Amino acid sequence: MRAIVKITLKNGVLDPQGKAIEGALNSLGFGGIDSVRQGKIIELDLDETETEKAEAAVAEMCEKLLANTVIENYSYELVP
Amino acid sequence: MRAIVKITLKNGVLDPQGKAIEGALNSLGFGGIDSVRQGKIIELDLDETETEKAEAAVAEMCEKLLANTVIENYSYELVP
Repeated sequence: MRAIVKITLKNGVLDPQGKAIEGALNSLGFGGIDSVRQGKIIELDLDETETEKAEAAVAEMCEKLLANTVIENYSYELVP
Repeated sequence: MRAIVKITLKNGVLDPQGKAIEGALNSLGFGGIDSVRQGKIIELDLDETETEKAEAAVAEMCEKLLANTVIENYSYELVP
């Protein structure tokens, strides 16, 4: 089973990488960009085949290691 | 209109960040993980309201700046 975890900065947390991308896009001539935010995507291949157990494991991985829950939100989806 | 761009390393390209996450998960006691790959997710808020124009602009941004197409794949979706 494959798990796809998306980790994004919470609203209100400064995102210097996003700002840098926004600046670079503007200087390349792309206009009309209001805001840019950058996050991470982590793809995990798991041996687990039961959806419920895999979901519990992935949620625990996010809480313990993958996301810094003080400043980041996470969401995940499981693909059989 | 909002564009969500996913950038992932191509198959066969070494992913040291993914390997580091895999090692850390193993040492935290999470077993049964076959592989971990890390990518980026970039959310852009665009002024453009026409889907076709926005799509063309985002594709050009990916080719010119956001993705290194030698080693990375990109995909994007537009959310009205």
